[in-house]
Amino acid sequence: MAVSDSPQALRDKIRNGVHTGNTSGYAPGFVQCNIVILPAEQANDFLRFCQLNPKPCPLVAQANRPGDFTLPTLGDIDIRTDVPSYRVFKNGEVTEERTDISDLWTDDLMTFALGCSFSFEEALIADGLEVRNISQNTNVPMYRSSIDCVSAGAFAGKMVVSMRPFVAVDAIRAVQICTRFPSVHGAPIHLGDPSLIGIKDINRTDYGDPVSIRNNELPVFWACGVTPQVALEAAKLPFAITHSPGCMLVSDLPNSQLAIM
Amino acid sequence: MAVSDSPQALRDKIRNGVHTGNTSGYAPGFVQCNIVILPAEQANDFLRFCQLNPKPCPLVAQANRPGDFTLPTLGDIDIRTDVPSYRVFKNGEVTEERTDISDLWTDDLMTFALGCSFSFEEALIADGLEVRNISQNTNVPMYRSSIDCVSAGAFAGKMVVSMRPFVAVDAIRAVQICTRFPSVHGAPIHLGDPSLIGIKDINRTDYGDPVSIRNNELPVFWACGVTPQVALEAAKLPFAITHSPGCMLVSDLPNSQLAIM
Repeated sequence: MAVSDSPQALRDKIRNGVHTGNTSGYAPGFVQCNIVILPAEQANDFLRFCQLNPKPCPLVAQANRPGDFTLPTLGDIDIRTDVPSYRVFKNGEVTEERTDISDLWTDDLMTFALGCSFSFEEALIADGLEVRNISQNTNVPMYRSSIDCVSAGAFAGKMVVSMRPFVAVDAIRAVQICTRFPSVHGAPIHLGDPSLIGIKDINRTDYGDPVSIRNNELPVFWACGVTPQVALEAAKLPFAITHSPGCMLVSDLPNSQLAIM
Repeated sequence: MAVSDSPQALRDKIRNGVHTGNTSGYAPGFVQCNIVILPAEQANDFLRFCQLNPKPCPLVAQANRPGDFTLPTLGDIDIRTDVPSYRVFKNGEVTEERTDISDLWTDDLMTFALGCSFSFEEALIADGLEVRNISQNTNVPMYRSSIDCVSAGAFAGKMVVSMRPFVAVDAIRAVQICTRFPSVHGAPIHLGDPSLIGIKDINRTDYGDPVSIRNNELPVFWACGVTPQVALEAAKLPFAITHSPGCMLVSDLPNSQLAIM
């Protein structure tokens, strides 16, 4: 498996069941997306939830209509086969993980693709910053914050945040870099004292793994793409499908095209 | 004295000795400048010092040649009369404050105009942020940091920093706003723990007045225009002239024109 595969070559392997795992570090330079697939009945509320909470739920693309399994703005994609691993939710609970959802597909299903932190992590590293979860080769630490999302229909909940520690000058640079990328969570939403956003112990993550924070560093917090998944679980929809964590849809869109300047 | 005078109307009053004090809050919306006037012999080193230390010493304009007392890019200006109060330095020490330097002027003197924090404070306030030194109606707190400037000829020294406290979300917004204004000190250079940049007690300022910092706030530090003045004193030049602190050159340049985007 070549990490440097083109997005299309990687998607071909995913489509054929050759690559079924994590996509972190693969097809470097290209946008990877969180995927949410919902019955049309809930799609409008979910779209509104994304628009009301753009930092945790930055919409990069959506299907043209229910039943459409393509995402032409992201590449030659069949969303039924092109994600390495899917989670199937029933009544808000994961009932199954699978690598192909063709036989679950109906004309009623609507697909949403949301931006992912991989894009801005790449921009931080390209600028010379050390992203701790990458240098420690672990999943980014994530926490349920005390920040309320704006609710829409059944979709509601607290914002999940990811954390990366930096010395102040790098934290300031990270704000500048990430501000250029609003569709992949944008600028941090908090830095410094974790308790101010409801995190009691920075070493106890709700998702992912803790990372070391040095004495001269500040924890810097970003809105996280796990937020919509939590909102989805809270909504207890009869049926929904998402990607499995870390197993993203790899698009043909260069990360640089997401930069607003 | 009308605070809302146009820059030209205010400069006329300054030129005629009617206004001799602080310019903070006057001619809102227009760039005000720190002024440094040096014999030609030291001018090149000072220019290089500014270029090597652009955050504390952001050059907005300079005279076309020694002896030229105009700054046409900043307005209809006679630098010998249009600053409300001047400081005259001999061998690195202030020997005199005066409101007119016409009789000290020689064909050998070179003028530099540097950006000032008034411009970015206005942008922060326009965005809804509370700038503590303004709401408390005091001089901004300033500190000699442990950060070395890059030296040029006789010009050297530590960076002086100004501090404004913000809650994290406003500190992040302040980074975004000030990044747009590199010629008025630009983005902060530090935030959080003051001891990391050599400030032992945040309540003991080296210049200006302390301000209150609330429990949920971070101190945010900017490179400060007092830095070149300190470098000037350290250089112990036989002769130099600056503005008196707070008594700036008011230009015709709208603050918005300094925004790089």
